[in-house]
Amino acid sequence: MAITNLKIDPEKLWGDLMETAKIGATEKGGINRLTLTDLDRQVRDWFRARAQSLGATVTVDDMGAMFARRPGQRNDVPPIAIGSHLDTQPTGGKFDGCLGVHAALEVLRVLHEAGYETFAPIEAVNWTNEEGSRFTPAMVSSGVFAGAFDHGWASSRPDRSGVTFGEALKAIGYRGDVRCGENHPLSAFFELHIEQGPNLEIEGKDIGIVTGVQGIRWFEVTVTGAERHAGTTPMPARRDALLAAARMVERINSIAVANAPLAVTTVGLIEAKPNSPNVVAGEVFFTVDIRHPEAGTLAKMEEALGRIVAEMTESSKCEIAIKKILDQPPVKFDPGCIAAVRAAAQEGGYSTRDIVSGAGHDAGYVSRVAPASMVFVPCKDGISHNEAEYTSKEQCAAGAQVLLRAVLAYDRQLAERYAEKR
Amino acid sequence: MAITNLKIDPEKLWGDLMETAKIGATEKGGINRLTLTDLDRQVRDWFRARAQSLGATVTVDDMGAMFARRPGQRNDVPPIAIGSHLDTQPTGGKFDGCLGVHAALEVLRVLHEAGYETFAPIEAVNWTNEEGSRFTPAMVSSGVFAGAFDHGWASSRPDRSGVTFGEALKAIGYRGDVRCGENHPLSAFFELHIEQGPNLEIEGKDIGIVTGVQGIRWFEVTVTGAERHAGTTPMPARRDALLAAARMVERINSIAVANAPLAVTTVGLIEAKPNSPNVVAGEVFFTVDIRHPEAGTLAKMEEALGRIVAEMTESSKCEIAIKKILDQPPVKFDPGCIAAVRAAAQEGGYSTRDIVSGAGHDAGYVSRVAPASMVFVPCKDGISHNEAEYTSKEQCAAGAQVLLRAVLAYDRQLAERYAEKR
Repeated sequence: MAITNLKIDPEKLWGDLMETAKIGATEKGGINRLTLTDLDRQVRDWFRARAQSLGATVTVDDMGAMFARRPGQRNDVPPIAIGSHLDTQPTGGKFDGCLGVHAALEVLRVLHEAGYETFAPIEAVNWTNEEGSRFTPAMVSSGVFAGAFDHGWASSRPDRSGVTFGEALKAIGYRGDVRCGENHPLSAFFELHIEQGPNLEIEGKDIGIVTGVQGIRWFEVTVTGAERHAGTTPMPARRDALLAAARMVERINSIAVANAPLAVTTVGLIEAKPNSPNVVAGEVFFTVDIRHPEAGTLAKMEEALGRIVAEMTESSKCEIAIKKILDQPPVKFDPGCIAAVRAAAQEGGYSTRDIVSGAGHDAGYVSRVAPASMVFVPCKDGISHNEAEYTSKEQCAAGAQVLLRAVLAYDRQLAERYAEKR
Repeated sequence: MAITNLKIDPEKLWGDLMETAKIGATEKGGINRLTLTDLDRQVRDWFRARAQSLGATVTVDDMGAMFARRPGQRNDVPPIAIGSHLDTQPTGGKFDGCLGVHAALEVLRVLHEAGYETFAPIEAVNWTNEEGSRFTPAMVSSGVFAGAFDHGWASSRPDRSGVTFGEALKAIGYRGDVRCGENHPLSAFFELHIEQGPNLEIEGKDIGIVTGVQGIRWFEVTVTGAERHAGTTPMPARRDALLAAARMVERINSIAVANAPLAVTTVGLIEAKPNSPNVVAGEVFFTVDIRHPEAGTLAKMEEALGRIVAEMTESSKCEIAIKKILDQPPVKFDPGCIAAVRAAAQEGGYSTRDIVSGAGHDAGYVSRVAPASMVFVPCKDGISHNEAEYTSKEQCAAGAQVLLRAVLAYDRQLAERYAEKR
């Protein structure tokens, strides 16, 4: 069968996306499906059942990552993996992560129904906790898979209520026996994702050929002052943790401004204790997210953050503790995988643009241990991590079609390479 | 029986304080007993049982305020009320509010066991939601009692999870039938409280004779920006609600600095949405507490706050809504009540100091509808609204003894005044 005859079904893909979007659906049309909640369990059950109905065998590792494997001609050859994640932000959209997983299942379906036999096995993957909203850091299972994080450390990460990642995995029944990343080489990994930025839409391009991912560093900051009565504690006697934190938020913003135009810095999470209107805050916890495509600039930005901590400790009468919890260097994707995506897009007649991802992705970690690349499709107004996130049925289908073609082309190249080796 | 023979029992008062401190006890020795929780119900049950054991009749009004009435010679004369509140901050101490209620019960006990008959009835009061930590505003039942707040408005105040004050009252079984403040004149109200500031301790004084309360205004501020992905949204394209809020926190602090030394401003509560490390905050809610002993300065401070809102709306690309939820003018207490407290302290041989309260108190509202004053005792290092809050057994006893004497002296004056009228 010619590869060009294999086509994904836009209606089926869209139908699946809309069906699972009901699991954790929000009133405003988004999804609130935090990792390892019961809602996550429900969508995992759905993934497993669907994959099995397509003849795939599903295994779960001890980080909860799910692999739906469809055998190939040569099952001793490492699989070509495709996929993304099914967890969402607290007020996430319908496409971030979900599109990549559903497209992977749609690829399995097309191959299954066509009876097409690939050279290597194909694995559709659902990575655990890509979002990092409930447990930090983000992309934890692909990180462990790639050796970036330790198993025990990842398992012991607590959410804000004290439940650990490992406990939550067990509670929903998705802590597998297989050790994540062990004896699990991949021939390649391809991830379809929405751009989460405005560039493809602005330039009217169908497909983003993703050549890399900007570097990301995450920090947790705890400012400790003194809880005092708001009415009776004179201003000079205060050690106000929220005031110190507020001043830091302002200065952290200026790090990005000083490294324009590519740098971004974000304080998105803040929690004050005791969080009462008439008590001077005794403790404030917040996170810092800094990103840049170049490792050198990223290091410079982290130094600036360190200076802010030092200077605020000096001037605020508060104690400030900072901890780096994520350090993802800029990623350059595999030229072979990038070429497969480019060829697939061009053969499909889609307009394209090379792009460096502004967001972190599981493919970034996986690229440390396997050739990898990504396919981007536009999203409306560049909006993501938001209930208003939107990519049309046609745009989703275009991305899935490029994914299917790239996988099959890569599989043929693989077959040729193995043939040469003989 | 001579008034001077009546003495409160330091051990009994202390024992009661320590006994109820177990209801909601925190590991660090404080109390977490938010208003209208089941813990609050438990301490209310305790108050009711104890008051009844002293021969008092307990009524509860529709704001949950509890009145334990001991009859006098003339039960047509409005009672002299004494008391405070049993709710605490989330990380509150053992004395704020509780001391005033327990001292009131101890006064009832002394009178009961001595068989002393007052002229007017005496009422020991437990006011609802003095702290304002769960439901804003603070001092809601004494506010309704004094006509400062509407019944329906107070009942409909929601906590942060959406439960209303009225629903919470009903849930713990403390929504009484009596309409708060109606047909309930008071001859006077006296409240014993810890200072919650450092002045008495610094000057080595036993008793603070409270001549008034500084004015307090509370505001709720909601900053609305746009939820966006932290990695893919360039800085100039952001409408970051948390950055705008942080800049406001800094500037609100400067209002107090500009009105030194008596002004205080506090942002103690902040909540960001969706509160995720890699999402630019789309909405931030925070509270503002401003206080000053002079009405004119307070008005000037509120104007400054309004300018900050206007200027930040202009410069931040966010929408900012501000709502005043509490406006308590500076209070000047009743000269007759102040004199009763002063005489009681002097006759008891205690060292004294006149003081304007930095914190709001139920007595502040009650003073709108009845003659009122307060008795302050020192607290260690001026610390309050904190688990480390501490006042010694002897200091508590001194305050309760002054309360007892002031009440009895005021009662005699009352008897004389009524006798003259005849």
